[in-house]
Amino acid sequence: MPHRLTALAELLAQFNMPCEIVGDPDREITGVATLDEAGPTEISFLSNAKYEKALSTTKAGAVIVSKEQEVPSGMCALRAPDPYAAVTVVMVHVHGYRKHERKGIDSRAVIDPTSKIGENPGIFHNVTVGENVTIGKNVVMYPGVYVARDCRIGDDCTLYPNVTVYDGCVLGNRVTIHAGSVIGEDGLGYAPVKGKWHKIPQIGIVEIGDDVEIGSNCSIDRATLGRTVIASGTKFSNLIAIGHGAKIGEDCMFVAQVGIAGSVTVGRHVTMAGKVGVAGHLHIGDEAQIAAMSGVMNDVPAGTSIAGAPAVPIKDAMRSFSYMARLPDMAKQIKQLEAQVEALQKKIGS
Amino acid sequence: MPHRLTALAELLAQFNMPCEIVGDPDREITGVATLDEAGPTEISFLSNAKYEKALSTTKAGAVIVSKEQEVPSGMCALRAPDPYAAVTVVMVHVHGYRKHERKGIDSRAVIDPTSKIGENPGIFHNVTVGENVTIGKNVVMYPGVYVARDCRIGDDCTLYPNVTVYDGCVLGNRVTIHAGSVIGEDGLGYAPVKGKWHKIPQIGIVEIGDDVEIGSNCSIDRATLGRTVIASGTKFSNLIAIGHGAKIGEDCMFVAQVGIAGSVTVGRHVTMAGKVGVAGHLHIGDEAQIAAMSGVMNDVPAGTSIAGAPAVPIKDAMRSFSYMARLPDMAKQIKQLEAQVEALQKKIGS
Amino acid sequence: MPHRLTALAELLAQFNMPCEIVGDPDREITGVATLDEAGPTEISFLSNAKYEKALSTTKAGAVIVSKEQEVPSGMCALRAPDPYAAVTVVMVHVHGYRKHERKGIDSRAVIDPTSKIGENPGIFHNVTVGENVTIGKNVVMYPGVYVARDCRIGDDCTLYPNVTVYDGCVLGNRVTIHAGSVIGEDGLGYAPVKGKWHKIPQIGIVEIGDDVEIGSNCSIDRATLGRTVIASGTKFSNLIAIGHGAKIGEDCMFVAQVGIAGSVTVGRHVTMAGKVGVAGHLHIGDEAQIAAMSGVMNDVPAGTSIAGAPAVPIKDAMRSFSYMARLPDMAKQIKQLEAQVEALQKKIGS
Repeated sequence: MPHRLTALAELLAQFNMPCEIVGDPDREITGVATLDEAGPTEISFLSNAKYEKALSTTKAGAVIVSKEQEVPSGMCALRAPDPYAAVTVVMVHVHGYRKHERKGIDSRAVIDPTSKIGENPGIFHNVTVGENVTIGKNVVMYPGVYVARDCRIGDDCTLYPNVTVYDGCVLGNRVTIHAGSVIGEDGLGYAPVKGKWHKIPQIGIVEIGDDVEIGSNCSIDRATLGRTVIASGTKFSNLIAIGHGAKIGEDCMFVAQVGIAGSVTVGRHVTMAGKVGVAGHLHIGDEAQIAAMSGVMNDVPAGTSIAGAPAVPIKDAMRSFSYMARLPDMAKQIKQLEAQVEALQKKIGS
Repeated sequence: MPHRLTALAELLAQFNMPCEIVGDPDREITGVATLDEAGPTEISFLSNAKYEKALSTTKAGAVIVSKEQEVPSGMCALRAPDPYAAVTVVMVHVHGYRKHERKGIDSRAVIDPTSKIGENPGIFHNVTVGENVTIGKNVVMYPGVYVARDCRIGDDCTLYPNVTVYDGCVLGNRVTIHAGSVIGEDGLGYAPVKGKWHKIPQIGIVEIGDDVEIGSNCSIDRATLGRTVIASGTKFSNLIAIGHGAKIGEDCMFVAQVGIAGSVTVGRHVTMAGKVGVAGHLHIGDEAQIAAMSGVMNDVPAGTSIAGAPAVPIKDAMRSFSYMARLPDMAKQIKQLEAQVEALQKKIGS
Repeated sequence: MPHRLTALAELLAQFNMPCEIVGDPDREITGVATLDEAGPTEISFLSNAKYEKALSTTKAGAVIVSKEQEVPSGMCALRAPDPYAAVTVVMVHVHGYRKHERKGIDSRAVIDPTSKIGENPGIFHNVTVGENVTIGKNVVMYPGVYVARDCRIGDDCTLYPNVTVYDGCVLGNRVTIHAGSVIGEDGLGYAPVKGKWHKIPQIGIVEIGDDVEIGSNCSIDRATLGRTVIASGTKFSNLIAIGHGAKIGEDCMFVAQVGIAGSVTVGRHVTMAGKVGVAGHLHIGDEAQIAAMSGVMNDVPAGTSIAGAPAVPIKDAMRSFSYMARLPDMAKQIKQLEAQVEALQKKIGS
């Protein structure tokens, strides 16, 4: 079903994004695509000036641009207050999210009879659900998912293929876990005894709040005692490691390959860019922003932006980086000064 | 079955950890929990002064503390020489380790008839065991485990869901591999031929010793020729990458996201903190300790502690980090000296 | 079937690697092994001077060495122009690559009837293929593989156990994906709305070219719009994260734990060593070489070698590293200069 440009403008107005239509308001749009790949029935967008050149070559039927952006003559456009926010609304409207089949519980799934599964499930073949598990309604579990005994899973959760959830873990409502991620494996808990490592039972759990999305191939340790927590609204990319007993606050965003050591506490709405590492037992305050590849070795106050390894306030890190480039010059200056001072000393001594 | 405080004190005495009982020796304990989460029938512990405050608010029925630690009046306690070691003993006694069902070989497992499986197995549905595999006794394999042809697996091993073991690999006794880990995939072996990469057959194996525990979502390359080795007693956290032909010594501990390039040799009882990287063909001596996020570019002598990228002895690294913070001051000092010297030169020249 | 040394020399001559035979040309060889592990019917090789010592202790029946290399008396050898290239040819000839069974489509695989699978497949039990998937000929899929709806997979591909391919992704011919890797999960695409993260539909795909090999436990995000691309001939090691919309060129080689943020474009034949991170929207030119653990924060011109975090040309990085070690000395020199200048000022002032 095509969408006329004017209908999309009305949609955006409903989202408090009033748009100006440039060109034919009856232009019909069937999908959203990048400037490079869009065809004449697709709408595209420009939000990063870096890609402005593509405006002149795109075959898109229309583009969403900023209020000030000039567009080539003849091109249909929606001028929106925030083109990226606008295209997001259009994508949800035109394409929607991935649909999941919910055909009930496949006969080839292996569900322990003591488990309880809510209404309207989509439990595929080769899913395993252990003893005494409680699962809410509208839950989808793809093949290869393994949910061990005593877990509790809320409503509207989606577990993609080959996800493993260890015993006793708790997932809230609307939790999405992408393929291959592991929730609740034992953490690295050993007591050193005469040069050997003796395993400490890991009797805690992982507790995941509502509306959390975990990327693929992540590993979230259960707590030694108590809970490892990923609070509501938090989003993880892929290949993230969370140590035992860590507590991640609400509405955080962690980019790929972040690693959080055990017993770390992270406040709300903290952003960690790719490959950030945080040492054990630290506290990261609310709204902190941690640049990619930072190595955090100290508590981070709320609202702070840090970078580097070891991480320091981002301005200090940038200053250090720029001074590092000047080190050879500084060494030369010192050498020159030493020669000049020596010459002065000789002159005066004489 | 509850445990009286006096019984726990006797238990600890047997482990050479004589304790003083504070308060009611008949206090009944049913479990171990954190200070924050323990209830009146649970015992907790304090081993890190950082958490001392929680002593005054805990609802724990008893706490394990150090010999010197003061406790609020009315609180039951065990004063132990090493509270963390003591709570470990109590956890093993009260909770024990995860139990695995061993109901034999599930009829929905796919086991090649040429394979041999020892007594008392727990081979779940959807496990695959290839041709000519030998498996010891008491081995547990969860759904989604795949063991390829010609592997040899010792006694008392546990392979969690969705673990893959490639052909010909060897696991010792009491090996635990957590969910999603892959043992024996091909390493990055290619010969460059006119700008293309020609694959070199990877005909070696991975050999894992006794009492090794591998975390979740790890990847351990098979050797190009010969063996990649993880020696007995070594423990890995999650998301660790081991390159082809690397040989990791006994009783090492690697934290999450460590990466070891091909042909590295690591001695015994080496500790690598999170995200350490080691370049190819290096040797890391016994008992070395490598700080989080270090990038190791040279051999490391036995007993050395190193940090940084590139990694240097930890004292040098700390010194460099502190000098880096002083760089702007140093630059200012140099500028000032230059002005002063110029002034002196003028004065003297005149 | 054993291979005489003279036959191996003839083989190498065919590959433009003329060899000199040292010792008995009729020596029979049954396999290739490392110097440490080879027995009297195995051939080994020496290509890295670091391992020269092992020449005097090896039990190998023969060794491949460089033209100039001396060998112990009595040892059989092939002197080759490039011993590593030569042993590669011998390994392919003597051992070949891993063989895969292609017994058709196992009855316990779950294949949607709308999918099309080419001739001579090896689709194992517990494989899932969704609606409207097209698969070429000679394709092998091991247990636990999940291929979602609308994917297109070329000829001669191999998907190892527990690989997940999300809906709509495209694989070329001769693509190999090792165990546990995930292709096409949703990227980290959220719009910030009043402190919450609203999911942006990820409607793009992943497109993988011909002759690509992906290691184990990698995660390759689908594009938000359009395509994430891994072009022909590129080889990945393990635990690599590729962000949404990234486009990786032909014949690249990425070592373990590399992480590429969204919308990055990488040219052809780029090498990234272990743990490299590249920030979003950057361009990495053809033939660039990026040292291990580099943090790339700017575009990289073609042909450049860079290192460090933030990454700079490798010579500058090396220079910075060496100056960093000199910082304490520089600070001392500055202090001394200050004292000397002060003394001079006093002297002259008086």
